[in-house]
Amino acid sequence: MNEYRKVTSKVYEKIKRIVKNEYLIIYNDEENLKSYSNDESGGEYYAHMPDIVIKPENKEQISDIVKLANDENIPITPRGAGSGLAGANIPIYGGIVLSLERMNKIIEIDTENLVAVVEPGVVTNDLCRIVSERGLYYAGYPMSVETSFIGGNVATNAGGSKVIKYGNTGHHILGLEVVMPNGDVVEYGGKRRKDSSGYNLLQLFIGSEGTLGIFTKIYVNLIPQPGKVVDLLVPFDNIEKAISNVGTLITESKTLPSGIEFIDKKSIEYASKYTGMKLPYQDEIESYLIIQYEALSLEEIEGLYEKSGKTLQKNGAKDVFIADNRTNSEKIWRMRRNWLESLKSIDPYVPTGDVVVPTSKIPEIMQYITEISQEYKIDIPVAGHAADGNLHPAPLKPKNIPIEEWKEVSEEILGKIAIKAANMGGAVSGEHGIGFIKKELLKKTKPKQYERMKKIKDILDPNCIMNPGKLF
Amino acid sequence: MNEYRKVTSKVYEKIKRIVKNEYLIIYNDEENLKSYSNDESGGEYYAHMPDIVIKPENKEQISDIVKLANDENIPITPRGAGSGLAGANIPIYGGIVLSLERMNKIIEIDTENLVAVVEPGVVTNDLCRIVSERGLYYAGYPMSVETSFIGGNVATNAGGSKVIKYGNTGHHILGLEVVMPNGDVVEYGGKRRKDSSGYNLLQLFIGSEGTLGIFTKIYVNLIPQPGKVVDLLVPFDNIEKAISNVGTLITESKTLPSGIEFIDKKSIEYASKYTGMKLPYQDEIESYLIIQYEALSLEEIEGLYEKSGKTLQKNGAKDVFIADNRTNSEKIWRMRRNWLESLKSIDPYVPTGDVVVPTSKIPEIMQYITEISQEYKIDIPVAGHAADGNLHPAPLKPKNIPIEEWKEVSEEILGKIAIKAANMGGAVSGEHGIGFIKKELLKKTKPKQYERMKKIKDILDPNCIMNPGKLF
Repeated sequence: MNEYRKVTSKVYEKIKRIVKNEYLIIYNDEENLKSYSNDESGGEYYAHMPDIVIKPENKEQISDIVKLANDENIPITPRGAGSGLAGANIPIYGGIVLSLERMNKIIEIDTENLVAVVEPGVVTNDLCRIVSERGLYYAGYPMSVETSFIGGNVATNAGGSKVIKYGNTGHHILGLEVVMPNGDVVEYGGKRRKDSSGYNLLQLFIGSEGTLGIFTKIYVNLIPQPGKVVDLLVPFDNIEKAISNVGTLITESKTLPSGIEFIDKKSIEYASKYTGMKLPYQDEIESYLIIQYEALSLEEIEGLYEKSGKTLQKNGAKDVFIADNRTNSEKIWRMRRNWLESLKSIDPYVPTGDVVVPTSKIPEIMQYITEISQEYKIDIPVAGHAADGNLHPAPLKPKNIPIEEWKEVSEEILGKIAIKAANMGGAVSGEHGIGFIKKELLKKTKPKQYERMKKIKDILDPNCIMNPGKLF
Repeated sequence: MNEYRKVTSKVYEKIKRIVKNEYLIIYNDEENLKSYSNDESGGEYYAHMPDIVIKPENKEQISDIVKLANDENIPITPRGAGSGLAGANIPIYGGIVLSLERMNKIIEIDTENLVAVVEPGVVTNDLCRIVSERGLYYAGYPMSVETSFIGGNVATNAGGSKVIKYGNTGHHILGLEVVMPNGDVVEYGGKRRKDSSGYNLLQLFIGSEGTLGIFTKIYVNLIPQPGKVVDLLVPFDNIEKAISNVGTLITESKTLPSGIEFIDKKSIEYASKYTGMKLPYQDEIESYLIIQYEALSLEEIEGLYEKSGKTLQKNGAKDVFIADNRTNSEKIWRMRRNWLESLKSIDPYVPTGDVVVPTSKIPEIMQYITEISQEYKIDIPVAGHAADGNLHPAPLKPKNIPIEEWKEVSEEILGKIAIKAANMGGAVSGEHGIGFIKKELLKKTKPKQYERMKKIKDILDPNCIMNPGKLF
């Protein structure tokens, strides 16, 4: 690793000449710099102060900043909404935090080509809302949709609850304009829907966590908005039974649900306390599935939930509750949506694991999480996306473990679960990314890929200016 | 470029020791070697003889062959069904053709995880058929589905007519096992449905045309089979009117068709002569759209075609013919499916262009093709995938141009059209790939990307053993 330089007052002057407006820079201002020192990965122990925060307004400024950083050997950490869960936007080597918050324009909604062109700082939900006004739909739907930026979604290849039907963020991105680590501005893809012209570099940037360049424009695929949505709440007294329904449900109903969420007994207890709600059968069961269907018409959706209801009851569901209006749906989703908040109300720095396994392996990984929970005598509630085998185990710090020890203990627990998942044909991150917290896990579980990823990083960012210490 | 070595009889002996079975090798056999010297790109002038053809049966043999090729400095050209249209499987530097035809096992259909695991030599249609017996569906659907191998589809990121709804081949691939250019066997992805663990190397291989490694196992995503299919044949007396329907149709019907095909007046004339069929309004119109919907139920599909029919008639269609049974559908599709065959019956070596533009730009690129056709006094029928802006202009050799000149002339024509398409926000290949025929076009239209693609090639295949002369 290079010995990076600090942002001196001389460099600060150069930066001012690039961005012109002083309000776009935070420098020598401990309190405001602090807001850019961490994300939502876990404890304060992960935080690191940047030397400077810059909030550029266009690609020209970004390109000039990147060139300056190369000349001065100063690291750049790109930052979206700061809602990351793996530390990817923590400036662990100091230097420049480049916040994309001012680049939040929706440039174009092209209804003819069904493409939205946006800047990276657009809040994902704002994009969803604005395209829905034209009868269109952005099918990427991370759980953080109300706070995260679309740029951050792209940088982590965010998933969420609708991946089984629509794929993860990478499936919805048709193009990117990227400021490369040497300052070059390069377009990958665009409004075209097909491209077999050379290597798919577009997808190389999706999930690259700011280590290969900074997105300045994003071409997003749009589809028609579904007419009707229905949610089913399905209690099970056995996890294996619950999960065995996923494949069967899809093949028997001949339809992909837009999502099948999973929440375990412990999570329900915490979420129930936090929300003051109670779900039916709450005290008798091991887990709930929340199944969502989207369809064109009322008839179609009725057909779907009737058929699915029968399949589920035949296959061990204790009951099937149907919510086909917004109020009832909200009730069903409230517990799931408030899951992380409910845990944070007990332990503000609860770390969130993010393992993925082939769906059929969920019972096996859940069994392992239970064993780890017992071995360490630590509560590990789990929620996640059953349809795509993506689970979030969240170990809660017991009072008797001091905070200084907790970092190590919690990383050890999540590390063991992640490696177990990878050994089952899964991976150590399904949708949050690697950041710096999981990089040893990445190296351990994908050694041959890791070696090749590193080579690609080295040729595209030879000075290692772009988000150093992340992934590698 | 290296000076590659020939496959001497000494090397041949080594190869025999690797694959053991002599029937898996063609050597010193001009006639049989010739069958592996070309693909379907165009004239005999593109052909090049390999020194040897090897038909390995497993990854171990492939790995050993690759290591040997590195040691001996012999190029390897991987080959699928030979149905390519850009020359990617022509061994332009001689050496080894590695045919995957014997690796044609369907290893597993995992109905629980909705994944098929197959070898690269499986004919795409065989995969479709076998999964359909279990109520499942492989949504990749290149027009060459009946002959092409799934491995070739992955290598070119094949498209076809269903991309608007389902995405191209890359969207359906969950994992690949690859023999790398140094002989390493590496798994990228697998049965998991999400993965944000480091760079997306999986997608780097999709569309890499055999230049980065040889696929030995492919994990394919499956979805439930659609219950009903309907096709609409829609004549238009104006191309602009036809194309302007694509976006409107989708937003007004709130449904993605599985495909919208396009065929122009000239193509209809040739296809009509070839098939002996006549389509309604054939002599009065400029083009047809063929629109396909897939849905769960009869009611749903009826609703769809009624709504779409109204939209189309409102927006300039001369009529709308509905085919909701196999016999009528077959009639509609016969012209489109026999398009290339009908041209080949006139000119056996007709080259097929493969440009892509944003859908709204189709009238503009069609206008340009007409101008080029007039300028060169050469007939250029066009068919393609209207929903994703992917067109195949196919210049027919006039009798007065000798074959020696035709290579240059046809390449010039297709080159001009490709560059025009790229300048409209499109690309020089939508689904066929670059091979060696379009590599100058790739370089010209994506210079900054090209430079980076080359760097990636160089670090992953430093001896340039793997399909040299393709892409670069």
